[in-house]
Amino acid sequence: MTVEALELSINLVWVMLGAFLVFFMHTGFAMVEAGFTRSKNAINILMKNFITISLGGIVYFFAGYAIMFGDSVNGIIGFSGFALNGVEDIAFFVFQAMFAATCATIISGAVAERTNITAYIAIVVVMTLFIYPVVGHWVWQGDGWLTSLGFVDFAGSTVVHLTGAVGAFVAATMIGPRIGKYAGKRVNVIPGHSIPLGALGVFILWLGWFGFNGASTLAADPAAVPGVIANTFLAASAGVFATAMYTKFRYGYMDGSLTLNGALAGLVSITAGAANLSMIGALIAGAIAAPILVEGVRFIDSKLKIDDPVGAVTVHGLCGIWGTLAVGLLDTANGLFYSGGASLLGIQALGVAAVIAWTSFAVFASLSIIKIAIPLRVSREEELSGLDTVEHGANAYEFQDSFKGVQRSGSFAERLTSLGQQPETPSTLRKV
Amino acid sequence: MTVEALELSINLVWVMLGAFLVFFMHTGFAMVEAGFTRSKNAINILMKNFITISLGGIVYFFAGYAIMFGDSVNGIIGFSGFALNGVEDIAFFVFQAMFAATCATIISGAVAERTNITAYIAIVVVMTLFIYPVVGHWVWQGDGWLTSLGFVDFAGSTVVHLTGAVGAFVAATMIGPRIGKYAGKRVNVIPGHSIPLGALGVFILWLGWFGFNGASTLAADPAAVPGVIANTFLAASAGVFATAMYTKFRYGYMDGSLTLNGALAGLVSITAGAANLSMIGALIAGAIAAPILVEGVRFIDSKLKIDDPVGAVTVHGLCGIWGTLAVGLLDTANGLFYSGGASLLGIQALGVAAVIAWTSFAVFASLSIIKIAIPLRVSREEELSGLDTVEHGANAYEFQDSFKGVQRSGSFAERLTSLGQQPETPSTLRKV
Amino acid sequence: MTVEALELSINLVWVMLGAFLVFFMHTGFAMVEAGFTRSKNAINILMKNFITISLGGIVYFFAGYAIMFGDSVNGIIGFSGFALNGVEDIAFFVFQAMFAATCATIISGAVAERTNITAYIAIVVVMTLFIYPVVGHWVWQGDGWLTSLGFVDFAGSTVVHLTGAVGAFVAATMIGPRIGKYAGKRVNVIPGHSIPLGALGVFILWLGWFGFNGASTLAADPAAVPGVIANTFLAASAGVFATAMYTKFRYGYMDGSLTLNGALAGLVSITAGAANLSMIGALIAGAIAAPILVEGVRFIDSKLKIDDPVGAVTVHGLCGIWGTLAVGLLDTANGLFYSGGASLLGIQALGVAAVIAWTSFAVFASLSIIKIAIPLRVSREEELSGLDTVEHGANAYEFQDSFKGVQRSGSFAERLTSLGQQPETPSTLRKV
Repeated sequence: MTVEALELSINLVWVMLGAFLVFFMHTGFAMVEAGFTRSKNAINILMKNFITISLGGIVYFFAGYAIMFGDSVNGIIGFSGFALNGVEDIAFFVFQAMFAATCATIISGAVAERTNITAYIAIVVVMTLFIYPVVGHWVWQGDGWLTSLGFVDFAGSTVVHLTGAVGAFVAATMIGPRIGKYAGKRVNVIPGHSIPLGALGVFILWLGWFGFNGASTLAADPAAVPGVIANTFLAASAGVFATAMYTKFRYGYMDGSLTLNGALAGLVSITAGAANLSMIGALIAGAIAAPILVEGVRFIDSKLKIDDPVGAVTVHGLCGIWGTLAVGLLDTANGLFYSGGASLLGIQALGVAAVIAWTSFAVFASLSIIKIAIPLRVSREEELSGLDTVEHGANAYEFQDSFKGVQRSGSFAERLTSLGQQPETPSTLRKV
Repeated sequence: MTVEALELSINLVWVMLGAFLVFFMHTGFAMVEAGFTRSKNAINILMKNFITISLGGIVYFFAGYAIMFGDSVNGIIGFSGFALNGVEDIAFFVFQAMFAATCATIISGAVAERTNITAYIAIVVVMTLFIYPVVGHWVWQGDGWLTSLGFVDFAGSTVVHLTGAVGAFVAATMIGPRIGKYAGKRVNVIPGHSIPLGALGVFILWLGWFGFNGASTLAADPAAVPGVIANTFLAASAGVFATAMYTKFRYGYMDGSLTLNGALAGLVSITAGAANLSMIGALIAGAIAAPILVEGVRFIDSKLKIDDPVGAVTVHGLCGIWGTLAVGLLDTANGLFYSGGASLLGIQALGVAAVIAWTSFAVFASLSIIKIAIPLRVSREEELSGLDTVEHGANAYEFQDSFKGVQRSGSFAERLTSLGQQPETPSTLRKV
Repeated sequence: MTVEALELSINLVWVMLGAFLVFFMHTGFAMVEAGFTRSKNAINILMKNFITISLGGIVYFFAGYAIMFGDSVNGIIGFSGFALNGVEDIAFFVFQAMFAATCATIISGAVAERTNITAYIAIVVVMTLFIYPVVGHWVWQGDGWLTSLGFVDFAGSTVVHLTGAVGAFVAATMIGPRIGKYAGKRVNVIPGHSIPLGALGVFILWLGWFGFNGASTLAADPAAVPGVIANTFLAASAGVFATAMYTKFRYGYMDGSLTLNGALAGLVSITAGAANLSMIGALIAGAIAAPILVEGVRFIDSKLKIDDPVGAVTVHGLCGIWGTLAVGLLDTANGLFYSGGASLLGIQALGVAAVIAWTSFAVFASLSIIKIAIPLRVSREEELSGLDTVEHGANAYEFQDSFKGVQRSGSFAERLTSLGQQPETPSTLRKV
């Protein structure tokens, strides 16, 4: 065994740990999106998350990786290594596949509770097949045009989060709001069904982000990893606490859902600059994410009237932009605030603009084609009764049936008894 | 510090990471089994899972490890190192202890909602004391008779999953179905109480499987680990997506519970061959698991009339067999489809048959003895009222009590109607 | 790349893995505390847990770390490295920051369901700013006075758990019991709202503890880590199984909540001695934690009449003391039972006494000052209606609104108000 071989081993362990953690982020997304939507659509959103990581991984294996990391065609797109043909670093593929699916799954929350699952599957395919890989190629393949300009996006505030959020914005706009969301000329609040489930999801996402940012070093480098992890931790912490304080100031109470999202806002905001900012810079990046989050959610929900049930556009999009620009301001070498001049900031802004332009065009075009063959939303009846029963033939919770059983016939107790159910307990309300 | 010492360190970290992830699988099993059964038995199934990993670990420490990895008596059974006496590699013990408990916990789901917890404790003891260790000795100790034949089971499609599933099958048969399951000459569906809890469990199991398969290399080997992880990921992904598509084709909708189980089916199917199949092979193995899962659950539930609330016999048993045989077909060196001839396939089939024979005999004999002293099931009254209140003196959820209180007032149904609850949802949840 | 550099890398990966796992413990605490309290306060307890890790981390970054690991002032307190100025090992800071927040979060469970969140925030600040860092300095900085005496606390039975528990005890006493807890001269049981959520939390805590104890080696040392992990696993296992058996013997059934807490009791009991006890010693330490847990909870709840909704004082305090003293008895080199004499036991007892004295004084003084400016508890009306709606403007669960609607229409509402809990609850669940 040589020192060089050992170095491969240790870096392998680090990247694998990162891949596992990013995989776990899909659990986090699933729990957040399920918790922040209604129980009648819970199976549906869970299924969408499972299909995103599954189908996304398969598509990325066959073609997405080749488009992203294949030999560059003029710095615009990759085109080699389909089905990993000739690809040597399989660990790197695994790590990147988790990222690709992350980008796609951001959309699922924004279009929750009314989107046809078949149409959603088509969205996952186009996102992981080429929309995200093209952006990734620009920034991370090495020969991309944004790389050559000096664009900095360490772990993907723009590549992953903004790309996903732009997709989410376009899709939510084209699909339209949930029934009742803007009924009566008002902006109605449709509360999620389980904040504890959402809180679990946010905690898991935060944990997963240590792998998302940490293993983006691609090596267990003592000179780089600790700072990345500390920055990730501090920015998230600042996001949580600043959001709690800001909502207290703004609304008179510490808002639960927003504070949970504050962690994600802080995390997205440090993702581009995790290796480039100081710890104080990370705290600033995370703290500024708080007002962006609170006002952004309000603006999109009330002014633009885009119905985004989980706030994905703000958390991943506006904070993704902020995180990318923050590198231009707070990079300890080239940031404006460190007298590194404004050129990096300009390049960061250019990258943001380019990704918004490409992704919005590509998602709009893709959905325009998809909707010729597949309706983007479910029927009005299905939406009202909930997607779970129609698209998946079931309820997410035992209590849902019990409620209905009691209502429907009044002989619920007897019927349950014959089934072995406890007659006096039409069961549990909810759970998790 | 020498290179050799560092190699020990890096392999230690890899195996420890694997052990932690396999430990976490017990959380996954607990959540899946709780979510897919009724709320009135939730504490009971959680307790069984906690006791499995706890007591299973202790029994394995005192004797199971010695039976499995002790000096071989004619390739049949180990017999040295009780209480780890003279055992040097404690990290390996920890990793293996998590596996042993995994095998045992498979049974808990299949016999859920009607099994006496004291009898279940006895089952855990016999499984981790000798039934599983004997199988493990045959295949993994090095001198076992199946090893000497060339039987391949990388991480335990047969050793862990099939062994557990055969135990589950025999136990579920001997204990009998839940009250009401086959009442009125019908196959009644008894839905689980929380699909989100089940989905969380499946995600955690999938995550844990990266350690289950990945650390079965026992070394952070860059030549082996990435392929194992990629195969594990792709087979699970194929299992999910193929099950979603297959149930859509078969039933007209994408079944939620079955699709969740599709991930597990894919994972069990790649466990034997994770280091031996190509990535395309892994996709095939995982995809074929889908129809095996759907039809297997149906067959066992409706034709054999074995009541297996979580589908454990199919997921771990039928898919365990498939995963083991798949090595004979798809092993890139010796598989039938790679013109490696049929001999490996024959050996794989022989191993499967031997494990079924031993485990079914041993579990049947053990339960026959156990039931002399301990009733295998709870009383009819206890089963109807739920195991939680009688065996654990509590309800799992706050709302269970509240419901009872409200309901006794009599007008519950009408008042609920006015609250905007959905009136009509047929109870079609498949309890897989 | 040199061997020395690689050694840094591998130790970095191990400590980072540990830090991630200890971070995840905060998810565990959040789920345990939410599950074991009422749904009307679920957002509040989740918010407190999020703020603890967030604000705790920030405070520890700015000052706590400097007080704990800065240059020692007479072995009593550290005082250098504020905002990590001059600190080189950032990975170590991250790992330690997770610990500091762990100590603080222990309090949140004990004072759940009635504490003003602003007052709680102040508690987090004083705990992570100086109360915990001072204790940590005594034991872990290297020049502390307890270190110089030979006090052994490997991963913090005393430093983290006892310190947190003493804070919890003082705070719960000063804040007083929840309304209804001791109403009618009885000790009323107030059941938690979701045992599955609590069980999930315990599993996550157990997982996290492998990092808490395992990475306290600070190196991926094959001579130390496997024993630490095995001891951690076996002590927790013994805690679970012994508690199940002990409650069966004591109450006639295997208590669910207590058995879950049995895992934590076992874990706290091995935290001080994870590197010093044999595996048999770990089993003994964990098993003895069971009666300490069961009788301790009863004593504090019924005799002292301190209302500790999650049993934190017993689990972290009494078991923390036991774990610390157990080193004096069972240390394989210097323990009394290994004929190492009683001197280590005496030092352990002295350390326990010193930490109790300092922490109880400091927490009492701090709270006495805090309460001048900030009321420690919420108003009676807020407590009765639940902290979620008033302090966070929302309900944790979708169904709660519907449910309240039901209550308002009948006599149920008044009955609830009078007790602050559901009237028909048979009250058998021990809310430990």
